[in-house]
Amino acid sequence: MKGVVLSKTTLPIVDIDHRFPRGDIRTAAFWLSEILPYFPPAVHVIVIDPGVGTDRRSIVIRADDHILVGPDNGVLVPPAKALVSEISDEDSREALDIYTVDDETADSDTFHGRDVFAPIGGDIAARNGRDLQSHQGLTSADEITWFNLPKATPSKEGVTGEVLVVDDFGNVITNVPGAFIQGREDIIVNGESVPVGTTFDDVSVGQRLALVGSHGNVELDVNDGRGTDAFDLMPGDDVTLR
Amino acid sequence: MKGVVLSKTTLPIVDIDHRFPRGDIRTAAFWLSEILPYFPPAVHVIVIDPGVGTDRRSIVIRADDHILVGPDNGVLVPPAKALVSEISDEDSREALDIYTVDDETADSDTFHGRDVFAPIGGDIAARNGRDLQSHQGLTSADEITWFNLPKATPSKEGVTGEVLVVDDFGNVITNVPGAFIQGREDIIVNGESVPVGTTFDDVSVGQRLALVGSHGNVELDVNDGRGTDAFDLMPGDDVTLR
Amino acid sequence: MKGVVLSKTTLPIVDIDHRFPRGDIRTAAFWLSEILPYFPPAVHVIVIDPGVGTDRRSIVIRADDHILVGPDNGVLVPPAKALVSEISDEDSREALDIYTVDDETADSDTFHGRDVFAPIGGDIAARNGRDLQSHQGLTSADEITWFNLPKATPSKEGVTGEVLVVDDFGNVITNVPGAFIQGREDIIVNGESVPVGTTFDDVSVGQRLALVGSHGNVELDVNDGRGTDAFDLMPGDDVTLR
Repeated sequence: MKGVVLSKTTLPIVDIDHRFPRGDIRTAAFWLSEILPYFPPAVHVIVIDPGVGTDRRSIVIRADDHILVGPDNGVLVPPAKALVSEISDEDSREALDIYTVDDETADSDTFHGRDVFAPIGGDIAARNGRDLQSHQGLTSADEITWFNLPKATPSKEGVTGEVLVVDDFGNVITNVPGAFIQGREDIIVNGESVPVGTTFDDVSVGQRLALVGSHGNVELDVNDGRGTDAFDLMPGDDVTLR
Repeated sequence: MKGVVLSKTTLPIVDIDHRFPRGDIRTAAFWLSEILPYFPPAVHVIVIDPGVGTDRRSIVIRADDHILVGPDNGVLVPPAKALVSEISDEDSREALDIYTVDDETADSDTFHGRDVFAPIGGDIAARNGRDLQSHQGLTSADEITWFNLPKATPSKEGVTGEVLVVDDFGNVITNVPGAFIQGREDIIVNGESVPVGTTFDDVSVGQRLALVGSHGNVELDVNDGRGTDAFDLMPGDDVTLR
Repeated sequence: MKGVVLSKTTLPIVDIDHRFPRGDIRTAAFWLSEILPYFPPAVHVIVIDPGVGTDRRSIVIRADDHILVGPDNGVLVPPAKALVSEISDEDSREALDIYTVDDETADSDTFHGRDVFAPIGGDIAARNGRDLQSHQGLTSADEITWFNLPKATPSKEGVTGEVLVVDDFGNVITNVPGAFIQGREDIIVNGESVPVGTTFDDVSVGQRLALVGSHGNVELDVNDGRGTDAFDLMPGDDVTLR
């Protein structure tokens, strides 16, 4: 893929991550939503693609100054929305400029990353992202596969959310906005009291705590340990906070 | 190695792969043969080097517009041949422009990547690959360690080949050219009938199939599973197709 | 972090390593001391940071033509010293130009790499490392957390050192200077005689040997095997050579 891109443009290539779990759209969508807004304007080529070889389409999304190229399986949607975050969630579909890749251009049975996404991404970068509407092989589109990361919902007693991902350190990242715990001293997580901290160091080594992670969500951690084990929580599990 | 290269040239450095199995010349030669032809003209520094510290030589090969730098253990040969693929296999040795690195220049006991390949590769890149024949420390050579990936051979009943590598997804990549199965509905693999598809999705989840992989060879896969387990095949194993 | 840096400067970003053991200051300090001197002048952003979220400070060190940005936990000290190696160990503290990052600039609870080190590193690189003393958010400092890799000490019978790290090949890298074994035919390691070689190939496959590694220290290895297993030595273990 890098070779193909370099054949199109001399702009620098940056590796973001090669270790997202295979085909895990949700985890990739979460991390890319966190990461892409820190980049200056760029073309992002994304290959989280359990459906390669099926008839799912290839798409290009312009989101503010950024362009995303990848499969039409939903994985591009949360990061694209994050890049136009000033717009309310309901309006974000119209804030995105969406194109599908013509079948002829997308003709590859087994390796769309190399044969479809990389050449289109390289071409777009070489043109500085201009004139997508007249770009060869692209057709403006209204509908794509939409995918939203799950949202926490207020409940009678607090808020019910779920675990979005577990990071490399074993920290449990929920979808509950950090504002829910800010200023509190402790909180009830699935029925058990847990202290609220601003950093791991606020509790003793081995102790559990809740804090607002670098992504702004409530995180369930252990100082020098793995929150996923201590809380027995995995991605997709429900989390009720009171 | 990157620091040494950057001391020689400001041309961009691209990581191709750091996860080839240690010292596995065959696997590295296969993947590099697949990957390098997608790159624009470049200097490729290759360190798959089980013999570092022995008296195996260091070599430089010019193959078309590309230059390969690495150990004289055969690993550079298949990718160099792939870069001049318009030439028949028999002629490819003369299509390559080969140099050995003088002992004085290659004086390093334990880390040729850093002390020999990287500085030579950086120097050559800084000169845009010109004038290898007058490059300090290089001597034109006729003979190097030759290595060919094994070829499938036609048999009375079909074709006998072997497994070249198993990829990260568990797909079994053989050395049988894809043309052998194209247009067929099924094929006998080591005595058992297997459907032929063009993509994973042509069979149900968990089912085996044969298809032409992105490298053009016959691949033995499982939809959403690992072909290496389902076919009980590992690199080097024989594969008979009828 | 790469996105933040790219927002500040178009200078190339080079990945050195993402696989240092988590929070292992000693191992990272050793490898960075080996690696950084091979680079041309650069800004090095280092995140080996078991204390993120505690009140440990963020620092910037100018060492010769290089600038290091990272946590004040000692991990920057050995590589900074290695970059001014012409200066004796005792003098190296004054050879370094040290700054702390003001609390306001370093305001981040959980991800200093992204929120503190990357933007400061990018800003410094964008200014080509000039005028650190007038750089916003930096204050000249006299004292930082000092950390030295342990040194081998001569003993009555030879030298007593320890294992600094075990590399990916299982080679045991000690802190004993290579000069101690050069020219010898064999050596007593923790009471057992071991041949001295210049390369793995000097002994049979599976045999142990001592040699001078690419870092200049005594290394305890096995030809085509793992020294850490054969010598039963791990990082931190004592090694007595006679």
